[in-house]
Amino acid sequence: MTGLLIKGGTVIGPSGATFADVLVEGETIAALFAPGRAPEDTARREIDATGKYVIPGGVDVHTHMQLPFGGTSASDTFDTGTRAAAFGGTTTIVDFAVQRTGEVVADGLAAWHAKADGECHIDYGFHMILGGVDDAALAAMDQLVETEGITSFKLFMAYPGVFYSDDGQILRAMQRARDNGATIMMHAENGIAIDVLIQQALARGETDPIYHGLTRPPALEAEAVHRAIRLAEVARDCPLYIVHLSASEALEQVAAARDAGRNVFAETCPQYLYLTLEDQLGAPGFEGAKWVCSTPLRSKFEPHGRDLWRGLRTNDLAVVSTDHCPFCFKDQKELGVGDFSKIPNGIGGVEHRMDLIYQGVVDGQLSLRRWVETVATTPARMFGLYPRKGVLAPGSDADIVVYDPAGHTTIGVETHHMNMDHSAYEGTRIDGRVDTVISRGSVIVDGAGYHGRKGHGRYLRRGLSQYLM
Amino acid sequence: MTGLLIKGGTVIGPSGATFADVLVEGETIAALFAPGRAPEDTARREIDATGKYVIPGGVDVHTHMQLPFGGTSASDTFDTGTRAAAFGGTTTIVDFAVQRTGEVVADGLAAWHAKADGECHIDYGFHMILGGVDDAALAAMDQLVETEGITSFKLFMAYPGVFYSDDGQILRAMQRARDNGATIMMHAENGIAIDVLIQQALARGETDPIYHGLTRPPALEAEAVHRAIRLAEVARDCPLYIVHLSASEALEQVAAARDAGRNVFAETCPQYLYLTLEDQLGAPGFEGAKWVCSTPLRSKFEPHGRDLWRGLRTNDLAVVSTDHCPFCFKDQKELGVGDFSKIPNGIGGVEHRMDLIYQGVVDGQLSLRRWVETVATTPARMFGLYPRKGVLAPGSDADIVVYDPAGHTTIGVETHHMNMDHSAYEGTRIDGRVDTVISRGSVIVDGAGYHGRKGHGRYLRRGLSQYLM
Amino acid sequence: MTGLLIKGGTVIGPSGATFADVLVEGETIAALFAPGRAPEDTARREIDATGKYVIPGGVDVHTHMQLPFGGTSASDTFDTGTRAAAFGGTTTIVDFAVQRTGEVVADGLAAWHAKADGECHIDYGFHMILGGVDDAALAAMDQLVETEGITSFKLFMAYPGVFYSDDGQILRAMQRARDNGATIMMHAENGIAIDVLIQQALARGETDPIYHGLTRPPALEAEAVHRAIRLAEVARDCPLYIVHLSASEALEQVAAARDAGRNVFAETCPQYLYLTLEDQLGAPGFEGAKWVCSTPLRSKFEPHGRDLWRGLRTNDLAVVSTDHCPFCFKDQKELGVGDFSKIPNGIGGVEHRMDLIYQGVVDGQLSLRRWVETVATTPARMFGLYPRKGVLAPGSDADIVVYDPAGHTTIGVETHHMNMDHSAYEGTRIDGRVDTVISRGSVIVDGAGYHGRKGHGRYLRRGLSQYLM
Amino acid sequence: MTGLLIKGGTVIGPSGATFADVLVEGETIAALFAPGRAPEDTARREIDATGKYVIPGGVDVHTHMQLPFGGTSASDTFDTGTRAAAFGGTTTIVDFAVQRTGEVVADGLAAWHAKADGECHIDYGFHMILGGVDDAALAAMDQLVETEGITSFKLFMAYPGVFYSDDGQILRAMQRARDNGATIMMHAENGIAIDVLIQQALARGETDPIYHGLTRPPALEAEAVHRAIRLAEVARDCPLYIVHLSASEALEQVAAARDAGRNVFAETCPQYLYLTLEDQLGAPGFEGAKWVCSTPLRSKFEPHGRDLWRGLRTNDLAVVSTDHCPFCFKDQKELGVGDFSKIPNGIGGVEHRMDLIYQGVVDGQLSLRRWVETVATTPARMFGLYPRKGVLAPGSDADIVVYDPAGHTTIGVETHHMNMDHSAYEGTRIDGRVDTVISRGSVIVDGAGYHGRKGHGRYLRRGLSQYLM
Repeated sequence: MTGLLIKGGTVIGPSGATFADVLVEGETIAALFAPGRAPEDTARREIDATGKYVIPGGVDVHTHMQLPFGGTSASDTFDTGTRAAAFGGTTTIVDFAVQRTGEVVADGLAAWHAKADGECHIDYGFHMILGGVDDAALAAMDQLVETEGITSFKLFMAYPGVFYSDDGQILRAMQRARDNGATIMMHAENGIAIDVLIQQALARGETDPIYHGLTRPPALEAEAVHRAIRLAEVARDCPLYIVHLSASEALEQVAAARDAGRNVFAETCPQYLYLTLEDQLGAPGFEGAKWVCSTPLRSKFEPHGRDLWRGLRTNDLAVVSTDHCPFCFKDQKELGVGDFSKIPNGIGGVEHRMDLIYQGVVDGQLSLRRWVETVATTPARMFGLYPRKGVLAPGSDADIVVYDPAGHTTIGVETHHMNMDHSAYEGTRIDGRVDTVISRGSVIVDGAGYHGRKGHGRYLRRGLSQYLM
Repeated sequence: MTGLLIKGGTVIGPSGATFADVLVEGETIAALFAPGRAPEDTARREIDATGKYVIPGGVDVHTHMQLPFGGTSASDTFDTGTRAAAFGGTTTIVDFAVQRTGEVVADGLAAWHAKADGECHIDYGFHMILGGVDDAALAAMDQLVETEGITSFKLFMAYPGVFYSDDGQILRAMQRARDNGATIMMHAENGIAIDVLIQQALARGETDPIYHGLTRPPALEAEAVHRAIRLAEVARDCPLYIVHLSASEALEQVAAARDAGRNVFAETCPQYLYLTLEDQLGAPGFEGAKWVCSTPLRSKFEPHGRDLWRGLRTNDLAVVSTDHCPFCFKDQKELGVGDFSKIPNGIGGVEHRMDLIYQGVVDGQLSLRRWVETVATTPARMFGLYPRKGVLAPGSDADIVVYDPAGHTTIGVETHHMNMDHSAYEGTRIDGRVDTVISRGSVIVDGAGYHGRKGHGRYLRRGLSQYLM
Repeated sequence: MTGLLIKGGTVIGPSGATFADVLVEGETIAALFAPGRAPEDTARREIDATGKYVIPGGVDVHTHMQLPFGGTSASDTFDTGTRAAAFGGTTTIVDFAVQRTGEVVADGLAAWHAKADGECHIDYGFHMILGGVDDAALAAMDQLVETEGITSFKLFMAYPGVFYSDDGQILRAMQRARDNGATIMMHAENGIAIDVLIQQALARGETDPIYHGLTRPPALEAEAVHRAIRLAEVARDCPLYIVHLSASEALEQVAAARDAGRNVFAETCPQYLYLTLEDQLGAPGFEGAKWVCSTPLRSKFEPHGRDLWRGLRTNDLAVVSTDHCPFCFKDQKELGVGDFSKIPNGIGGVEHRMDLIYQGVVDGQLSLRRWVETVATTPARMFGLYPRKGVLAPGSDADIVVYDPAGHTTIGVETHHMNMDHSAYEGTRIDGRVDTVISRGSVIVDGAGYHGRKGHGRYLRRGLSQYLM
Repeated sequence: MTGLLIKGGTVIGPSGATFADVLVEGETIAALFAPGRAPEDTARREIDATGKYVIPGGVDVHTHMQLPFGGTSASDTFDTGTRAAAFGGTTTIVDFAVQRTGEVVADGLAAWHAKADGECHIDYGFHMILGGVDDAALAAMDQLVETEGITSFKLFMAYPGVFYSDDGQILRAMQRARDNGATIMMHAENGIAIDVLIQQALARGETDPIYHGLTRPPALEAEAVHRAIRLAEVARDCPLYIVHLSASEALEQVAAARDAGRNVFAETCPQYLYLTLEDQLGAPGFEGAKWVCSTPLRSKFEPHGRDLWRGLRTNDLAVVSTDHCPFCFKDQKELGVGDFSKIPNGIGGVEHRMDLIYQGVVDGQLSLRRWVETVATTPARMFGLYPRKGVLAPGSDADIVVYDPAGHTTIGVETHHMNMDHSAYEGTRIDGRVDTVISRGSVIVDGAGYHGRKGHGRYLRRGLSQYLM
């Protein structure tokens, strides 16, 4: 019994801190020892984690690598994006394979495998986006659950003609998910009403980036969240996961459903915790385009940020993901000069999630254990990766991060590894630092630099959610 | 100063009981006197109301006379329907002129005037149904408010292809109503999801009338009510009136909006207070077809009826209307034998509303003053008829009912005056009786029989709602 | 049929505006005529109300004339206080007779009659304060309801040793009220916890008037309101009326109980709508003492005022009273220099209620009809005075106010008629004016001055509440 | 590295199942190995847990061994009670040391140590009951937290004269707890109002056991819970833990506070999940006395049981404890023949908690992971015992239960080990069985019988709660 021994650290798990030395053999965790109790000859190599946190590698369940959108494509490939993720302490992503309205599901999936295969630096799985639901799509759902390890399907209540499903389609998909055990993920915004507001704004000459936010009011996010919850109720309590929840009013709907014991879950993203409609989206000139994403950033004059942090504490928000969907300002975001509705939607942040939420710990918003739970354990459980991912347990994949609370990190375009010509969090200082990152037993990031490689990451066939009540 | 003097009665108004003698001159109320204080020569004719209630004539704001539906037409004409209403103490109706999807609004209105003109026994107004919303319809809204005395527009979240408006259309109509002062009336059921449930039920061979109810679950009414409330919020608090609210869950949504101070109102109908999914809609064989209406009757194993009575007490339900839409069993309801979705939707009850809600007073569900408020005063105020209708005040139209709490009424097909071959309330006994009915100064019903006539009723140009907070 | 005819005005009632000429004969309203329809020789005297509002005289159900408190007495006698009320358009008060802890109820009542008898300028009734509840008090409750026309009893959850009742006493009183039909009025603040906060504040040297407010946090009002509601529930839904509700959190509790159909009612007072903890109670030096009252003024940094106005619109707040309890600054308020807990609690405002709430109409906070309802009709119904008071109906007492929307009023110590050396609303300008005040048929205020007299006001034996659901 | 190796089992932790072999050395867990990965010579002794669950030993944070109550004492000593607990898979209890009104805190604690010292079969800690709060008690709180390892204090809103604290006392204790980090535990029933109901019932001759329940209505539990929450809010969010929550209405209050992000927690007990007012407390004759406990069993005609199970799923109920307080029927419960208020309050169940909640897993009420969390992990975290207790982690005390899902258990007086002459759950069958129990490394229960001993259990000095948001 010999391998890599991570010694002296504080192991943070979803229930709190324990003290243990972690032994990695090959690609998995072979044992956890009480401090100093490992047999003498155990360690072939040691990492001294004294004074540091030892945590499961981050699991980011919402990324869009090289997603075609609005006539361009997200600027990170699976290569550049997963490498950046690794730098930030994320060792698993679940990306969205896409079936657009009118396409065949299997074709969409095959295309995504083709993009990712051999390119990833860390392990990855896929959700499937359904751009509408018909008999073929329903059959494909069963097949993906059974044979492809894809157990979550994302539907859109927005973007008619591209991704939009009507309420009948949503209901049918939910019924099918209820039967085959899958989870329905929902982009919850009333896109039909929003499109009216967009047309009216443009007709009034309101073309600046801030109007992207003003035409997507919180009420229309709350409306869609409530609708999705009711449809899931009609589908005999189909598991429902709301993506990128951004508004207090939407959070209230989730909290009410959860109080009633429903299997309704939600994620938020760092951008909704730190950035606002006025300060970012409303930046002078066209600058605000950098922060055009949907759901949009919310007003700082309303208590959205405060409420979202609270939701993370109460578990009404179970997960923090990034919705990583980067576009360069030049040539990409600029497609929307003079018409905010043509700005590609998305913010890049896959590299910064672990740091940004850790800063919430420093700021007193979240406990250490809850940090680990929201960025690693719960996403793994929610999407059928547990206990392989998301936990430091014997037999689990050795995806491990040593995090240094005495370190410091400054976020910015000069230092980040994502393929973006700007940073959404430029200049943000974090009172902590990713020290060492281990992916399936290999040290890929440490003080000496980057040791990972394209192709190391493997496709993860996922099981059903392990997070249901 | 001489005329018809109604003496000795207890006048019930929305704030409670007072004692007054009511003098009618011509078509209006000329004066109210403290009991016995009218000058001696005042009365050309007297009605002794001692021991009886003197109340404003009923105002039924939801009727569908001779409405084409599902290949047939509602069986009451404006002639037969308004005559039946008069027998029941209702002296004003507001019927729905119809623009179907694809039709021109003005044509629909003209058609309705053509049906009603010269046919009515009591005064009548029109709401306008919009079967979808486009620029022409929006322009028509303004015009109807300004010149036609039509200040309320009904939209449907159900019945795609016939009446259905999508959320963008609804939002546009609400914005327009917010500007021109009109009220949006909403048939709030998620018809898109319901249609999926209907197709699935039929595919399983579930064709009996009860499946009409089971495919329209309360969650899909609550969903639509919430959605309408949110859209009205986005339309800067457009006045919203939910028609035929039937389910506890939907009532909760209305109550929450009202607590928040929004101009959200709702009506219920006697069928939801007295009849149930199991006992009526689930009657053996095809019998249940008599009670096929939308929203449907609700389960007696859930507290809908109890909650609706409570909603009437708390004013979360402001109005009782009938949604009078009669179809004969033979040849009409029978169109749906073997397929519940082909049964014409509707229950006839315009004649019985005053009695049925009065029975709630006898049963301890409602106060006397609240009876009058929900069946006469509030509907008149809600739809711009006050103080001409809905109140016994000097200058008001002399629409007056003398109601005898010592009398008794038994409802049934043998005695009712509606053009129906059955009664939804067959055999129901009421501990009270309509004694005398006066319409614009004319006694049209009394102990000696019927004295009204076709053509007495006049079209009412209505003003804007007088019920906003 | 001859008398005083008020012609040409707009009559505002709780359901809205009508147009009528009001005939007063002797002390009562003899008739209401459609405009211009009174017989020619009817008017012995006419008041031209063209362009003005004709409304029922105000009913202020919460006053404390010459109340002994904290070693001094409220500075208005029944003489000065009711005369001031008359100037402000209030023609009825219901004052609180007091039984302190340990006293006999009948003695307390007799003392109050002795103070008021022959002194009042307008009609008056009494509630009874019970300073604790024992068998004798319970028996007295029955007797007061049956023979004295006192049908409402106020209990205190604060002021131990003076007025305080514990929860067992409250429950017993509520049970008795449930049986004899009376209404329980509640001063809802957790006085036991508040006294701890007061002692702690004083021990820290926090003696300024603002600490009066800071030691009575909204949470302790909300707590007591909830507790009172639950005790009333245990007492089989005893009618409960919360006095001087001041905080958003307390309002939420009332709204929830009302949604559930409970007979729970609440009043607020003008001071909570217009004045705040920081701007008034926190005035420099000892100035803030003028605004020491309990419940206290609330923080302007929280949305109390906004929510209270909304509560008046939604009827979760049914009544506006004044809690008129005036103390002069000199010698009275000054008793608390150096110790806020010794400042006599109370604000004087009986003269300004009608004006201040009318200003809410001008400011768009309230409708005209709701103004009349909250200041006259509902208080009369709530406390068993309807239809004698609170409405302009044939047979009602001729308590009438002609209010001029084109007039203006400026509130201040120079012009007010209350016996106070300062005004809580100094300099407040009202866009309206009390034009004429009639009490039981006598014009007591008009443009020519004051025509009322001490002793005109009569004691009102009240019936049970007419406001229950 | 040698010791006891538990092999082949499924380890259930609060986040789910993992597969690990657990190595015990001495009194602690030395290591967890991936299955089969322990070095060959590791096991000095092996337990084969194949097909079984390996879980942390149960932590019961609410017991009353030999508590004096109503003139008698709870019938289990620390010897008999902790031995029975061990049989049921509970390896830690936290009992309540008692200071009655008027006593000195240190004396109460010393008395409890005297009872337990050398008597316990498993580890134990103490909470402290404060029978009222004064300056001395506040000082004692600080001292117990700092030096005695007692970090939780229980107050009573019931039992005046014995344990009762008024709201001022409660507030002071909460303020102190906020400062020293302790948790306030609350018996939340409005005992002042309840005592009125009891006296009224007895006066009506209602003396049977069922009246114990009928005089403690759910509204008075909900009231007290809300009051405690508000007082904790005033004490700047003092951690609050509601004991033995039994009613839906009370749960609603807890859920609302938790949604708002407050540190409010609650436990329920098996009796409220399985037993009812009618079926047990209302048993014929005096039989119901067996189930007299406070809070009382609730009506089966209301959805309390359903809601409590749901609360366990949603974590609005965080802990299951037993409130173990056994009294024999003969001579003890019989003290209340003819007067239910004299029946000693309490149900014995310390032996059955793990089984009864596991049955909830079998019945589909709860997940496996949630079973472990509510009976072991959360109680340990809530009361400062983590990670020493409540988790299977390297370095933790080796308190381990092997639970056999293929076994069966029938509960009854013939087989239980508690010192009671009856069982509250007589005849209840459990579809599972405690297989092996290990306390600090010693196997104390296995198939061969009982191997534990009096005095093995040690006093646990507890830290502050590790469960705050």
